[in-house]
Amino acid sequence: MLKKLLIGFGCCACVLTVGILIGHFGISKTGGSAPSWASDVVKDVDENFITAFLSEVDNVQIEHNLRELTKVPHMATTEGDEQTVQIMLKRWQDPETGLDHAWREEYDVYLSFPDPKNPNKVTVVNASNSVLLTLREKEVSYTPDQDDPNVVPPYAAYSPAGHAKGKLVYANYGRPSDYMVLNKTVDLRGTIAITRYGGAGRAAKAINAEPYGVAGVLVYTDPYDINDGLMSDQNETYPHSWYLPPSGVERGSFNTLYGDLLTPYLAAKDHTYRIPVEDIPGLPPIPIQPIGFDDASTLICALDGLPAPNDWQGSFKCKYNFGGPGFKNTSTFKDSDVKLDIYNYGTVKNSSNVMGVIRGSVEPDRYVIYGNHRDSWVHGAIDPSSGTSVMLEITRVLGRMVKQGKWRPRRSIIFGSWGAEEFGLIGSAEYTEQYFAKLSERTVAYINVDIAVFANATLRASGMPSIQNVIFTSAKQVSAPGLESTSVYENWIKYSNKTSPTHGVIPRIGYLTGAGSDYAAFVHYLGITSMDISYTYDRTKTMARIYPAYHTAYDTFDYASKYIDPGFTSHQAIARTAGNVLIRLADSLLLPFNCSDYAETLEDYLEEAVKQYEEELKAKNISMEPLKHAVSSFRLAASRLDEVIQSTDLKNETPLKVRMINDQLMLLDRAFLDPLAFPDKYAFRHVIWASSSAGKPTFPGLADAFAKAVSSGQNSDWDKVHYHLSVLNQAIEGAAHTLTNVI
Amino acid sequence: MLKKLLIGFGCCACVLTVGILIGHFGISKTGGSAPSWASDVVKDVDENFITAFLSEVDNVQIEHNLRELTKVPHMATTEGDEQTVQIMLKRWQDPETGLDHAWREEYDVYLSFPDPKNPNKVTVVNASNSVLLTLREKEVSYTPDQDDPNVVPPYAAYSPAGHAKGKLVYANYGRPSDYMVLNKTVDLRGTIAITRYGGAGRAAKAINAEPYGVAGVLVYTDPYDINDGLMSDQNETYPHSWYLPPSGVERGSFNTLYGDLLTPYLAAKDHTYRIPVEDIPGLPPIPIQPIGFDDASTLICALDGLPAPNDWQGSFKCKYNFGGPGFKNTSTFKDSDVKLDIYNYGTVKNSSNVMGVIRGSVEPDRYVIYGNHRDSWVHGAIDPSSGTSVMLEITRVLGRMVKQGKWRPRRSIIFGSWGAEEFGLIGSAEYTEQYFAKLSERTVAYINVDIAVFANATLRASGMPSIQNVIFTSAKQVSAPGLESTSVYENWIKYSNKTSPTHGVIPRIGYLTGAGSDYAAFVHYLGITSMDISYTYDRTKTMARIYPAYHTAYDTFDYASKYIDPGFTSHQAIARTAGNVLIRLADSLLLPFNCSDYAETLEDYLEEAVKQYEEELKAKNISMEPLKHAVSSFRLAASRLDEVIQSTDLKNETPLKVRMINDQLMLLDRAFLDPLAFPDKYAFRHVIWASSSAGKPTFPGLADAFAKAVSSGQNSDWDKVHYHLSVLNQAIEGAAHTLTNVI
Repeated sequence: MLKKLLIGFGCCACVLTVGILIGHFGISKTGGSAPSWASDVVKDVDENFITAFLSEVDNVQIEHNLRELTKVPHMATTEGDEQTVQIMLKRWQDPETGLDHAWREEYDVYLSFPDPKNPNKVTVVNASNSVLLTLREKEVSYTPDQDDPNVVPPYAAYSPAGHAKGKLVYANYGRPSDYMVLNKTVDLRGTIAITRYGGAGRAAKAINAEPYGVAGVLVYTDPYDINDGLMSDQNETYPHSWYLPPSGVERGSFNTLYGDLLTPYLAAKDHTYRIPVEDIPGLPPIPIQPIGFDDASTLICALDGLPAPNDWQGSFKCKYNFGGPGFKNTSTFKDSDVKLDIYNYGTVKNSSNVMGVIRGSVEPDRYVIYGNHRDSWVHGAIDPSSGTSVMLEITRVLGRMVKQGKWRPRRSIIFGSWGAEEFGLIGSAEYTEQYFAKLSERTVAYINVDIAVFANATLRASGMPSIQNVIFTSAKQVSAPGLESTSVYENWIKYSNKTSPTHGVIPRIGYLTGAGSDYAAFVHYLGITSMDISYTYDRTKTMARIYPAYHTAYDTFDYASKYIDPGFTSHQAIARTAGNVLIRLADSLLLPFNCSDYAETLEDYLEEAVKQYEEELKAKNISMEPLKHAVSSFRLAASRLDEVIQSTDLKNETPLKVRMINDQLMLLDRAFLDPLAFPDKYAFRHVIWASSSAGKPTFPGLADAFAKAVSSGQNSDWDKVHYHLSVLNQAIEGAAHTLTNVI
Repeated sequence: MLKKLLIGFGCCACVLTVGILIGHFGISKTGGSAPSWASDVVKDVDENFITAFLSEVDNVQIEHNLRELTKVPHMATTEGDEQTVQIMLKRWQDPETGLDHAWREEYDVYLSFPDPKNPNKVTVVNASNSVLLTLREKEVSYTPDQDDPNVVPPYAAYSPAGHAKGKLVYANYGRPSDYMVLNKTVDLRGTIAITRYGGAGRAAKAINAEPYGVAGVLVYTDPYDINDGLMSDQNETYPHSWYLPPSGVERGSFNTLYGDLLTPYLAAKDHTYRIPVEDIPGLPPIPIQPIGFDDASTLICALDGLPAPNDWQGSFKCKYNFGGPGFKNTSTFKDSDVKLDIYNYGTVKNSSNVMGVIRGSVEPDRYVIYGNHRDSWVHGAIDPSSGTSVMLEITRVLGRMVKQGKWRPRRSIIFGSWGAEEFGLIGSAEYTEQYFAKLSERTVAYINVDIAVFANATLRASGMPSIQNVIFTSAKQVSAPGLESTSVYENWIKYSNKTSPTHGVIPRIGYLTGAGSDYAAFVHYLGITSMDISYTYDRTKTMARIYPAYHTAYDTFDYASKYIDPGFTSHQAIARTAGNVLIRLADSLLLPFNCSDYAETLEDYLEEAVKQYEEELKAKNISMEPLKHAVSSFRLAASRLDEVIQSTDLKNETPLKVRMINDQLMLLDRAFLDPLAFPDKYAFRHVIWASSSAGKPTFPGLADAFAKAVSSGQNSDWDKVHYHLSVLNQAIEGAAHTLTNVI
């Protein structure tokens, strides 16, 4: 019986098994089985992967990267630049830690160099043409780096060549208002103006001077603006500290526009039409040359004339006078002129971007772009190699995960190592011109990390309001350097914060309104949601305009590792934070953009605009009501999209619905583009972020048009204010339309 | 035993069933079961639905629509126009045959009208200022329609008001070359020029005259150009045939630009900034007035002077002379002047678009737009109501399917009934300006059916090359009117064909290079793949420039139903063909666009350009090699995308891959936009289709720049040729980049 029972049970078990097998495999479920891609398309960002990434990012590797990148000076298109091209290609093509694909893209771009055979000269010459003083042609050496024969002597790129001689005057920052004040007491015709860095763009110091008949311009960095007043290289400045030595000179590009100057809006290929050099707008019309503050002090302290106003005074141990014009009778330079002999020349040179990609698995036609320039003025340890070292560490960690088959992002990631940024953001601008259509259509975001570390105190971030959210999320997961139990976010909020009506107290995000680094073409020309981050100063501890060795021969590995980031932990924090943002943008099922944060900024802008302009506009019969309506339409549309997102079960929705929402978020900034909004401003099309003279957080075109109308009082200028208001309304209403119900 | 066996079997069966049930429902399949949306997202166009649609489209309904739409004159912004707004809204909001949603969109636009209190006058006055002849102020009545008090008298919209008096001259078509020839024998200063329609734009006839000192212009339609020479209303012209009666006058908009003239690039809302009226470019600088050919014949046959060249002669039974200037001594008008007293006035009026939508089920954020204008000059039976009648029949059939729950398109469909087209495509242009961002991002295609039927012979279609394929497919499924066993396609190919290297003999598709109807803003400003279709003439049977009642008081239901399309079967064929295209664009899983057909057109353009320009460009050191390279890059990229499509199992692929390919196809035309390509041409941004004076199928900007350089011989103009070549290369290479591997 037992046997029978056992046999019976056995049979039943067999039959049951057969049944189960038939039921499971033999009969298809209603609606069929899930297609193989069904789980892929709903995959979201993997927090374990992020944890792994954060722990892999290594400060020692970053230090190693920086040492390699800064071996030699690597000014754009020089042999040193080519060496960095090779470094990037080698790393990104590495079979174990490289990317899917890496290559170079070349452009023929217009650059400006000093003539090695005819060094630029600045001298003081007396009436009989004897040279009383020759200013330094190069910076003093403190380490072997400064003796490298490829250290380019200080010069003003795009200053015209020429000879200018005249009595010296002091023109403060060289702003229009400075020359106006100066011109009230001194006849500026035929003078040489000495100006200090800051307050105005480099080229502007010469452009503003020219209408007054000034013949040439010198520019130096006052210790007041960069060294917290310190001046002695015996014990105060580098190599004793991070401060600028007396002979240090900031080099720079003295142009106004960005991108290759001969091929506006066109990628600078060999066959591309080039405008005549004499037609380039925005270059200095008169010779200009940067000098060190030791030489500047010698000149300024000898100046005759009335004392300059208090806010023109710097740190030199003398009264800064306007100039007689020229020097005091008591000075050895009495009756002497300052003479500039400038031999800069312009030339078209071949410059490379190095590009690398990781192919996206689910949405390969969506790009997250991460970039930094590669070229420096000299060794460029901080600018730009701190950023490049960080980028290489991010690509090493991600590249290895890809090569090992452990990870592939949902969206494609494009890395760009841009060429010739120092001459005017050229490599990145040419790239956006060449690939305009596909980048416009497909780019989710651009992340820029140029100078990764200015100092060790706190995070600094700028970007479109919609991206602030993912920066916060990312910064919360990273430890602040040197503060194990404090996050980068918690540390940041202590240094810079604001109160948001929605979020309460949050770190303050800056806006990308200018053209300070390679984000410019992405923001202003393409309208791509962008950000730029770095580690920076405690502003209560220094007044330095920027890190003191900026664009000088002292920006070396020695300087960076001793005074900017010993131990490279701030670099590491930036690599972790920027990398975290990058992964979230690439992997999140729903793009981590918050359009309501954009609404908040527009509301702030509007409030400021109403406060500043409404009364006077009313008097001119120009209503701000349509602008108020536009901003409130935008807020409504943003809230609606937020509700759609909240109420959608993204993981169980059709991937096309998620894509629809993502496209709305991705393309939001594109809706603010209007190529006719700023007819005079090359490549500025984003009506919210164009650079402006306003100095206030409000709509830039409105601010500029308003200022012009107030100053001219002409009806035609008030018409332009009205016109720009209409442009703005249409852009904001148009953007709102993209966020609301698609049909 | 049997019992036991039976029990055993029974038990086994039960156990097996339980097993099957457990296996089927209790254990989830690897990867889970298919999500509910899985079958939706791969749904393709349903041929049964298309068959049903084609059979539902009813010629009697179209006739009924036309009768309703043409009850009263409905010139833009008049009461009659408002009646058509109400008709559209009623139909599209109908609970049984309407759309998901319909509404009106209003703009305040600048129009030009004759003054009802001061009718425009053209007279012949002698030296003592006696009026010898007053030209007709309105057309002769043959049916009650022409007596409607709301028939607007013939006038030239946007002609300035003013009084001009002078000796008459005959200036043929009023082209620059015509005035040049005439000026060789006659001093044109202070004359009145009579011109015939054709050969040049309406406004151009006055703009071209003004530099010669001409004081005023008349324009008429010569029976040679419109009536195959016939002239008598006793037995030859309407109401005896489709030909234009002697008093018939073509009205029209005498401007050069399109869109509201006071708000370029901005939607004309009440608060929008408006340019001063005197700043509008492209308007006639001197008074101009259209007249009938009976009056024109009286004037022309009395003209003195040398005989005009043979190709200036028309159908009047006299020699066309240049004019003395003025009339023959033997004429009763001897020594008399022609006098124009024009009282037109400009005014801002409220104009409506009527919009209606069917929401897409799977990709609601993809739009197929179908439109036609609603406004006419008089009753507008053919222009535009033939097209509107067709649109209403398409929406009736589709609307009913939607209301009955039988169908919902994959993508959203937007119907537009545009206002104020006759004054310069205003309603459609304002719409594209207002919704620029979302339309750019999401629009798959624009279908324009304005005049649906010119005549009964054959299909005529224009569009981007990529859309030709779906027009062919659709036309093959529709019977040609009156030819049961012949398709529209088979009939068409007999009338107009070409040989394609890829497809062999195919019907010839025209290109949308001009601004002839509401497709202009979609093509030139937005870069949206567009098409325009109609039924038209047998060109071997008539030389008529257009259907003879065009823009006259004779374009009535009576005219349309008797002489253009008795039985309305050509209307039906257009409704079927256009509707078929619409459904295919809205429902196809893969967009039915063929990018290789685009490559073929670019190759044709290139071949023509090389033939026309290469030798001379070489002599100027301008290479066409980059352009050749660009076109061949485009061909390669198109072939690659075709291969991807061929090798992809679309129904089993992730919907995001299909979307990726569809986005590549949809956005192709957008890649050809460059807002800086034609700085002088308002709203022309598409570098391939901008209108051009070339008269040849080649790159329009290159053709125009080349012609200008040849004519001026200046280096700066040759530079502009080179510049435009670079613009073109970058656009074509950029478009190729969008078609190739996305990463």
